[in-house]
This record gives sequence, C-alpha cells and structure tokens, in this order.
Amino acid sequence: MGRRKSRFLRKPVEPFAVAPNLSADDVVSRMERVSFQGRNLGTARRIWEKMIASDATIFLGTAGALSAGGMRLILAHLIERRYVDCLVSTGANLYHDLHETRGRRHFIGSPTLDDAALAAERIDRVYDTLASEDEFCKNDEWIASFVLKLERRPYTSRELLYKLGEQLWNDTGNNGILTAAYRANVPIFCPAIADSSIGMGLSQARHRDQTAGFVDVIGDVIESANVVIRRPSTATIVLGGGTPKNFINQASVQAEFFDDRVGGHKFAIQVVTDVPHYGGASGSSLEEAQSWGKLSIESEKVTVHGDVTLVLPMLVSALESTAGDALEKRKRPEFDPSGRVLVMNGQALADNRFQES
Amino acid sequence: MGRRKSRFLRKPVEPFAVAPNLSADDVVSRMERVSFQGRNLGTARRIWEKMIASDATIFLGTAGALSAGGMRLILAHLIERRYVDCLVSTGANLYHDLHETRGRRHFIGSPTLDDAALAAERIDRVYDTLASEDEFCKNDEWIASFVLKLERRPYTSRELLYKLGEQLWNDTGNNGILTAAYRANVPIFCPAIADSSIGMGLSQARHRDQTAGFVDVIGDVIESANVVIRRPSTATIVLGGGTPKNFINQASVQAEFFDDRVGGHKFAIQVVTDVPHYGGASGSSLEEAQSWGKLSIESEKVTVHGDVTLVLPMLVSALESTAGDALEKRKRPEFDPSGRVLVMNGQALADNRFQES
Amino acid sequence: MGRRKSRFLRKPVEPFAVAPNLSADDVVSRMERVSFQGRNLGTARRIWEKMIASDATIFLGTAGALSAGGMRLILAHLIERRYVDCLVSTGANLYHDLHETRGRRHFIGSPTLDDAALAAERIDRVYDTLASEDEFCKNDEWIASFVLKLERRPYTSRELLYKLGEQLWNDTGNNGILTAAYRANVPIFCPAIADSSIGMGLSQARHRDQTAGFVDVIGDVIESANVVIRRPSTATIVLGGGTPKNFINQASVQAEFFDDRVGGHKFAIQVVTDVPHYGGASGSSLEEAQSWGKLSIESEKVTVHGDVTLVLPMLVSALESTAGDALEKRKRPEFDPSGRVLVMNGQALADNRFQES
Amino acid sequence: MGRRKSRFLRKPVEPFAVAPNLSADDVVSRMERVSFQGRNLGTARRIWEKMIASDATIFLGTAGALSAGGMRLILAHLIERRYVDCLVSTGANLYHDLHETRGRRHFIGSPTLDDAALAAERIDRVYDTLASEDEFCKNDEWIASFVLKLERRPYTSRELLYKLGEQLWNDTGNNGILTAAYRANVPIFCPAIADSSIGMGLSQARHRDQTAGFVDVIGDVIESANVVIRRPSTATIVLGGGTPKNFINQASVQAEFFDDRVGGHKFAIQVVTDVPHYGGASGSSLEEAQSWGKLSIESEKVTVHGDVTLVLPMLVSALESTAGDALEKRKRPEFDPSGRVLVMNGQALADNRFQES
Repeated sequence: MGRRKSRFLRKPVEPFAVAPNLSADDVVSRMERVSFQGRNLGTARRIWEKMIASDATIFLGTAGALSAGGMRLILAHLIERRYVDCLVSTGANLYHDLHETRGRRHFIGSPTLDDAALAAERIDRVYDTLASEDEFCKNDEWIASFVLKLERRPYTSRELLYKLGEQLWNDTGNNGILTAAYRANVPIFCPAIADSSIGMGLSQARHRDQTAGFVDVIGDVIESANVVIRRPSTATIVLGGGTPKNFINQASVQAEFFDDRVGGHKFAIQVVTDVPHYGGASGSSLEEAQSWGKLSIESEKVTVHGDVTLVLPMLVSALESTAGDALEKRKRPEFDPSGRVLVMNGQALADNRFQES
Repeated sequence: MGRRKSRFLRKPVEPFAVAPNLSADDVVSRMERVSFQGRNLGTARRIWEKMIASDATIFLGTAGALSAGGMRLILAHLIERRYVDCLVSTGANLYHDLHETRGRRHFIGSPTLDDAALAAERIDRVYDTLASEDEFCKNDEWIASFVLKLERRPYTSRELLYKLGEQLWNDTGNNGILTAAYRANVPIFCPAIADSSIGMGLSQARHRDQTAGFVDVIGDVIESANVVIRRPSTATIVLGGGTPKNFINQASVQAEFFDDRVGGHKFAIQVVTDVPHYGGASGSSLEEAQSWGKLSIESEKVTVHGDVTLVLPMLVSALESTAGDALEKRKRPEFDPSGRVLVMNGQALADNRFQES
Repeated sequence: MGRRKSRFLRKPVEPFAVAPNLSADDVVSRMERVSFQGRNLGTARRIWEKMIASDATIFLGTAGALSAGGMRLILAHLIERRYVDCLVSTGANLYHDLHETRGRRHFIGSPTLDDAALAAERIDRVYDTLASEDEFCKNDEWIASFVLKLERRPYTSRELLYKLGEQLWNDTGNNGILTAAYRANVPIFCPAIADSSIGMGLSQARHRDQTAGFVDVIGDVIESANVVIRRPSTATIVLGGGTPKNFINQASVQAEFFDDRVGGHKFAIQVVTDVPHYGGASGSSLEEAQSWGKLSIESEKVTVHGDVTLVLPMLVSALESTAGDALEKRKRPEFDPSGRVLVMNGQALADNRFQES
Repeated sequence: MGRRKSRFLRKPVEPFAVAPNLSADDVVSRMERVSFQGRNLGTARRIWEKMIASDATIFLGTAGALSAGGMRLILAHLIERRYVDCLVSTGANLYHDLHETRGRRHFIGSPTLDDAALAAERIDRVYDTLASEDEFCKNDEWIASFVLKLERRPYTSRELLYKLGEQLWNDTGNNGILTAAYRANVPIFCPAIADSSIGMGLSQARHRDQTAGFVDVIGDVIESANVVIRRPSTATIVLGGGTPKNFINQASVQAEFFDDRVGGHKFAIQVVTDVPHYGGASGSSLEEAQSWGKLSIESEKVTVHGDVTLVLPMLVSALESTAGDALEKRKRPEFDPSGRVLVMNGQALADNRFQES
C-alpha cells in the first residue's frame, strides 16, 4: 500500500475512551468522533453553537409527549436563556406543561400495566407515564375560565398563549414552558391547537358562551412568515417532527414567496424517531427539505435518530457547559408578543398581510 | 405428552399456501392465520367488516403523504361507497388531492436524487416522489381565489372543505377525496389546516383582503364531539397517526364528558409505522387508548405496523370483494355538511355548544 | 408555465384504483406506480422476474421467525419451483420448519399474554405466536438421534442439512423447507447453526457421544464462494437481514478475491424492517453494499421496508401469476448437495480451496 | 378531589433540570425520573450496578458495527475492569477491533457519499464510516497466517479467539477488545464466526492448507451452557441483538435442561433498535424471554430502545462514576480460557458433555 491515501480517508474515527468522572460536555465532545447517531448528537451540539454565534432567529419545534415525559424544564431553560427565539409546539406539550405548572404531576408507570384497571380508576397512560383524568378535567375548566375572561375577538394562537402564560405566572409563579415564554417574551405558535386539550378547554368556553374561543390560526401563518421576512436569517431545531416541523418550514417557504432575500433556514437540527422511507413529513430528511427550499442548499444540518428523552438531556447539558459566552453575545431578535400584533425588534409585524420587501 | 393440550394452544398457525391466480381476497384471507403483521392485516379486514355490519359511525383519519403517494383514489372510493362516514385529515393530503383533481400530477422519482439539482429546477421531493413547485403555487392561488369568493365570516374546516370540494367538482368534474366527499355528503375535518398549503392559500386570501380566511377550528372540536353524542356507537380507522388520530379520539373523550352513553370507540384499526415506546401519540397503542376511554375496554381492535402504501391497496381490495352486501345493508348516518351547521340524520348539530343528553 | 417539463417529471404516479375482485397480480401491478414501500413491492416482483429470465444463480437468505410465523410453505414453494437456487438461513427457521414437518404446530396467541402463566405451562412465545416447549424438546432429541446415526466426521452445514432433509422426508413425507430442498437438490447453508435449536440438538448428540456433532462452517464459507466462482452471475433475495444477508454478500466478495470475473450480485431484493442509520448490517442499504463490491454498480435492486409476513404472501402470489413461462425456460444451475463435496452442473466444487480462475 | 390518591400515582416524574457543568453521572441520575427511553437509560445503569453487587456471571453480547463505530475501547474497558465476565460477539466486531488494534483506522464519512466513487477507490462504507479494502485484505492475510501457525485440530471459537488475542497482544501491545479479553482472561464466544471476515481469514488458511481452519462451534454451545451450570446465577447485557442475544439465552435454556437449579438470567439489560412486533429475535421483548425461561420471572430487566453509539458512552461514563467500590468487591468468576478446555474457578468445564448436576 505505497499509494497515497484516498481523499475520503482523512479523518479517523476516535474510539470513545472511558475515564472517571467525565462531564456531560466531555462525553458529548468525545461522541463527535464516533459513528452513527452518537456522532450526530455531538454534531448537533456544535451546530447549535453555530446558530447561537450567528445572527439567525432560532425556531424550536416540539412534538411528542415531551412535557409529560419530563422534558418541560429543559424547554423552559432553553427559552429563558434564549437558546431559542420562537417556539412552535403541539397543544399537548403546552397542556401537560400547564398541568405541572398548576402544581399537578405526571407519575412513573409502566407500559405493561392493565389498562382496564387504569380506566376504572380514571388514570390516563402515556406509554410508561400516568396522570389523573380528574386533574385533567380541572385543567380544562381552568382554561375555559381563562378564555371567558378575554375580550371577545379572534386571537392568534401566539397572542392567546402569551396571555395564557401571563395568567399562569400570575396565578402560580411557577416555572414551565408557558411561563418562561411569557417572561422571556418568546412567542409560541400552536398551529394545531384544536387537536389538544387546550382546544378542548377553548371549546368548553364556547359551550358556555358562544362568542368565546375563536382562534385565528391563519393569522399565525402570516405572522410566522413575517418573522422570517423581517429577519431572513433563520435556524430550525425540531424535536419529534409533527405539525411544528412543517409549520417552521412553511414559514420559510411562504416568506420566500414574498421576499427573495429569504433562502431557507441556514441551520437545521432534528431529533426524530420516524424514518424517511414511509414518505411522512415527521421522518423526512433534511436533504429532502432542501429540494423545497425549506433549508438552504448550504445549510449546516444534522438529524439525530433517537428518542428526545434520551438525546435532549445530554445535548443541552453539554451545550450549557460551552455556549455561555456566545449566549451573552448573541445578536438575537427581541419580541413583544403581548398584543394583537406581534412586535419584533420594535416594529409591528402584520398579521393580515405578508410584509413584502 | 399424553397430557391435555393447554388452553393457550388451540388455534394453529396455518402456513400460507401459494397457488396460481390467487385473488386479493384469497391472499388476505390466508394471511389471517399467519403471524405478526400479516395476521394483523387479515384481522383488519375482518374488523372493518364488523364495523360495516354494526350501527357504528365510522371515522377515517389520514396522515402522511397518502395523496402524493398514490392512495387518493382509494380514499375517494372508501368515501363514495361509504366504507366510512367522516374523514379527519391533515391539510397536506387534501392539498395533494386537489393538485391531482385539478389535473396536475405527482411524479415517480427516487430518494437518491440530487436535491440541489431539484431545487434549481423548482421541483419538490417527497421521498421518492416529485412535483412541480410552480404548479403548487398555482394551486395556492386557486385556493386563495376560492376563499375570496366566500361570504366573509368564520368557517369550520368542515364547512370550508365542503365548499372547496363543491368548487373543485364544479370546475373539474374529476374524482378525488374532496370531490367524492362533496358528492357523498361525507364531512371532512382538518384540525391542523393552518399547517398545510391549504393554510397557505387561506393566508394568501387574507393578504389580499384582511377580512377573509377565518377558520373556526374550535367549532370543529364541538361539531366532531356532537357527531359522537348524537350517535354514540363509533369506530375509528387511522392511517398514519398524526393529528387525525388524536382528533378522532378527542371527539369521543369530549363527547363522553357531556353524555355518559358514550363509552369510547367500539372498533379500532390503525395502520402505523411509529412505535409506542417513544411516547408519541402517533405510535401509541390501542391498549393505551383504553386507559383514556378513547376506546371501549370491549372494543375490537388491531394495529397493523406497516407503510400505508403497502397495506391499504391489499386491505381495501380484499374488503371490496367481501363487504358488498353488508355495505348495501349498512345502518349508516346521513349528513348534510353544506351549511354553517352540520346536519346529521336530519337534525342540526350545534357548533357552539355540546349537545348534552 | 409555458416552459418545457423537467426531465425529472416524466413518469406520473398513478393513483391506485380499487375494483371488484382484483387478483394479487392486479394489486401488485397497480402498486408499481404508487410511491414509497408500495411501489417498492411492485418493483421487487419485476426484479425477481428479471432474475429468473437471466442466467443468474439466485440466493435466498431467510432470517426472522418466518417458519413459526406461517411463511415456511411459501419458502418451500420457492425452492420446489426453483424461484431460487440456494438457501442461506438462520437455524431457527429450519428448526421451526422441522417442528411442523414432524407434525407439530405453532399456535395463534397474542403479544399481551401473561408470560409467567405461559412459562408455568411450558409454552414459548414468539410475539403473537406460541409453541409447546415439551414438543421442542422432542425435536431436539430427534435431531440428536439423527446426528448419532451419521458417520463420525465434520460436515458442512450444507451436507448436514441435506441429510437432515432426507431423513425428515423419509420419516414423514411432509412438505416443508428442509424436505423441499432435499427433493429439489437445493443446497442450504446455515452459517450460524450453533446459534439455534439445531445447534442444541447437535450439542446433545455430542453429549451422548463425544465424537459426534462436528460442523465445518469454514467449509461452508469456501463452498459458497465456489458456487459464485463457478458461475459468476448471481442474484440475492434477502428476507429479514441477519447472518444470511451478510453470508450471501461475503460469498460474492470472497469469490471476487479469487476470480475477477466476479463483480458483485447483478440483482438484489431485500425485505427488511431494520434501518440503515444505526450502522448494522441487517438494515444496511443496497447502495452501501455497492461500495464493498457486494453488489455490482449496475445491479438492479430494491429494498422493501416492511414485515416479511406482510410482504411475502402478496409478492409471491403475484409472481406466481406471471413468472410461469420464465420459470420453465430458466437457465438455472443444477446441484447435487448429497455428498461431502457439493456438485454444481456436474462438476465437484472444492470445500477446502477456492476455485481460482 | 378529596378522594385518596390511587396506588398507581405514587412516584412523580421529575422534570430534568439543566445546570452548569453536570457530570455524566448527574445527567444519567436525573434521567431516572423522566419517561420513555431516557428513564430506561437511567434504569439500565442501576440494574448494571445490581448485577455487579450480586454474585451473577455477567454475559455481554455485542452485535452491530460497534467497533467500526468507535465503541471498541468502551468494550475493552468493560472487559478489563470486569464489568462483564464473558463476551459473545459477532465476528465483525472482533474483526474491526483487530483492524484498529493492528494500527489501522476507520474514517469519518457520510451516508450520502457516492458509492460508485468509493468502490472505484476500494473504500468500504458502513453508513457514515469508511475503511480501506486493501487494509482489510491485509487483515485477512494476517488472520490466515495466524491460523496456519496453530496445531491442526478443531478449536472452539472461544479457544481460537483467546489465541488470536494473545498473538495480537504480542505483535502490537495495543489495547482493544481481543487484547483486553486475552489479558483479563475473559472468554469470547463467536457462534457465527463463519459469517464474518474472521471466517474469511480462516477459509483462506484452509485454502493454503486443507487441514487448517476447523472451528468447533458445537463445542461452544456446550461450553457456554456449562458456564451457566457451574454457576447458575447469571446476568445478560445485550447491545444490538443478533446471534449474541440468542446465544446467551440459549446457554441458559440448555443449562436448565441439565440442571434445574438454573432458572433463567437474574438480570437483563438490552440496548436495541429493533422492535418486537415483527417477531424477530433481535427485537424480542424481555417479557417474551420469560415465557421461554431465558429470563427468570423475577428478573430485574430493562430495554433501552436506541442506538448503541448514543446510549453506551453515557451509560458507561455514568456507571464508571458510581460502580467503583462494587467492582472492587465483586464476587466474580475467574476463567482460564487459554486451553482446549475452559477452566472456571479452577475447575475444567467439559466441551463435549453437559455438566449434569
């Protein structure tokens, strides 16, 4: 083998070396040089660091039972410390967050419990996790009461969730996703709000007063695109796929339609368990997203194929150890999500027309 | 082994016997006695037959790229022949249906195509399937124009999609999901309509006229629950998971809250590729659904773990061969989804309050 | 859009059209023009037809609980009708085949049965399928007795399994994988025979007579490569991955080392549920196999991501309807696997040296 | 809700709290109280600690591309520090370990590289990892030369791999799986050795001398069962499934046949990506294993559904921080794997008959 080494064979895999008392940062750093999903986790941390060091507006999408599953204070932390700028979530994650912020709990169970016995005790199961249905009903009532206090007009999910966070914070003073977003002025979009217990709470408000509970989800479509148009450098972090993944990409595609400075997200991280080969959006590859212009052809991107509860604690713990300085220096957008119209860096964003350039 | 056979060992697996010129019905019938997902496919056909023979209102939920992937005329057939009574869909499936009903096509591609080259030609990829982005933009305009013709008021997605199907049928006379549902008076709910190109079309209507494009998704929550309250025997067929899966279950749970004759769906079939052990709703087991009361403890149910494009053609082809008589005799609900208020079996269903018993 | 259609957008997806009384052939033919795994199933049938029409030696690899799961008579049919020429299998598939050929059965169960109750009754569960452990113990004894009748010398798994099939056929006259292969002179390799109940039966023979039960698995490595060297045009069909997938590829790679006419398999079909992104061989892509020279760069190939019990009945039923003539005209290799040395097309293949060209 | 809390709702989920400079131990400890696979990772560490504190013989099974993927020094560490007592591996993991121990490397690549270009440069791809085929050929020659130095007689894979480790250590003095096992006197079984490049190396030795390269894999079956019979308290840790998973279970089942003190493994951890519902052994549940008696009904057990490269670095880093004392005090078995007959705690274990009690 006297011949020159191939250009393909330049950077060797470094076998992970165990040592006593490694930090999360050490572990994730060493994973950068292994293979497969371990390497992708290491890469995800580095790309997130680059997002923070850039001028990108960072969207975070959250689907799956993250709040019930013990991830809600990580998300609250990401919001509070502004690792991210704008949240797009399923309703369920916000609802289960509200449940705990209101002082209720989810409980450790097992996937092999007897569901008939659980049903008899009015206990709801999410794989290996349990909660009281009676407590859920109280949440629904709390949401309905909150809604009935609002002025009667349509609300974008963004405005509604800001006010919900405000009410929760005033009532409880507890940390959580909704209350952290309220305090940090991070907007939350929930495009599929009707498909969740928050939607059920809204429908119960309507039941009591037929003029209540109007959500203007089309306003959300426009606002989210205008967030991109106003500041065309963007990044996306997706946990679990679902409607948030598509909604964040749609914002970019819709924005580009009206402003050709927009050229797709510049950075992308996704942590998913779905796979590409069944054609669904949740599992779709980041390469495929480039054909649509959802991601820039030059974007830095990585998919970590794994459960969020396995990946996120390590990823954020490592990031927390190394991103501090960059967080301080971030050129981040500032929002005021409190009003009918979203304000970004001091300027109002229309919710009824796209901000053409 | 003179001892008596265990009660567990009563019904043997029958090895599948190949024969010339088997029909789809033959194949699926023989699969009932094999194991694993083959057996589950056979069982799914039998449970669907039982749904039809019962008095249940049959909900069909569709997520994933089914229309782009060549499944839309199967869904149209299920609607037209009333194998199902009410559709809950992602926006994407309806949008890609509209694309083809308007005479455009999706194309055979490959997952290994160069996405930069596709982007350069404005071609969008869905795994191994391609479409023209310029044609998609024309669809968006068509939808916006349609929306601008409507009276200015909020519409449930159900009413809006009825009118969209009507317009499509009048314009094209072509078969598809939306036009079949229009003609068969099958209501379609789309709880996450904002997260789709239909939502983008609605937002473009709003862009042109700020009084247009209001969708009342909370009205959908109430209407769908009232469909269950009016006729508490229900069945669910879910293809792909996503928001439709949860929305159909939510209708049952919400209905039970107001009417204790409701006790969860009586039959359930799901064809999914997600798995339960990551905690997400798409992959959640039908047993877990029983703890919540989404399904009756006595329900007949089966999960087929497989790609819908692999399972549905065989399943429906087999069903078509054996369900004919039962379809004729079905005690099915009749809807009039044309108005502001949904009519079921001649009676209006409220969209602003739950029909308490 | 006056501009010319892209070269990428030539062949449209054809929505699957349901019709009464479709045959398996009709269904699979229509699936060729849909997307995702449905299309891949349709493509698999066409590639298998091309294998048959070519001069390729067709290897079939079988892993997973195919025999317990009701697939064994399909495999027997493929062997008997010579849709394939050489089988590479896990031991478990051969063992569960032997169980049924000896007149025992596997039984329909459920994945939610109580495993403690099953253990108490000595019933073994394979997901939703059950069998009697006492009957399994009788099989092990039967195998040990068979082994003790053999001349004391090492046997390749290929020779041993031929003799096992012969004994089974003489004892029972029943159809199955082992007996069909015996009668059709199709060699069976079982590289991981030690990891199965056949290996346990062999070990029990050794327990009774320490000169018994020697399997020469390295002889299998050489023989399988020589099958490729003798006739360098080859094809591979893999059901489920595992050791058979790799062993078939290894035969090609090893053969090429000694004979540069060998250039990788010319055709490849795999039906797998594992995915590529965890790096394991079972889920590895057919593209990756090309980098190793396991497959020719020009090979025709398809992966169907799905459960074999879902895919194989439909695939073989469709193939049976269309491949008849081609099967008659096949230029297939003829084996005599009865002796110490495998004979192929009348010439002995060495088991102790590679047949250099 | 004045009523008493359900017995099901006792132990709340504790949301993971991010903090600066968490250690791997901190992260994994906090994961014990979240849900889904994160919790299972936390539980796996605790069960491994209990294995170490017990008197169990700990089997470790390794499948998948662990060595190519950067996990080999973790496995070497587990062996050297005697977190485990006996390794069962695929041949590939040992071969890729030998490659690096001999001073060669695997390289960082990408799953989207052009496989034709790689093939042209004789570079082999394992998902996102690359290696030189010419270097692999040199390994095969090295193995063949090693084999030709051995006395001409059948070797169990256990004896052969001990001698291979010895030779490697003498040649290189480098750390790795094979050399660590040699130095720590940890036996390695490789039941599917024929299905790997080690098998190819053995076959090339046979090619040069037809009396060389005989592996007695049935002897391995007997020896491994005798390891259980001699010391019936056992534990199993499976990384990736495959033949090692089944072989470790088979040892227990076979042992129980001859000695009814054996009652299945007392502890079980598996880290797998396969799922149960396709019926294959790799994905089979630990509950199912109880029906067979592979695991004791009272065993402590956990499945972590995730990629080994994602799970193992974190799991072992955390374990390393907390298991030190227990490792010192371990009541572990001592082996001498250097000879024709395996010696355990000073007594020879037969390789030609089961040690009946």
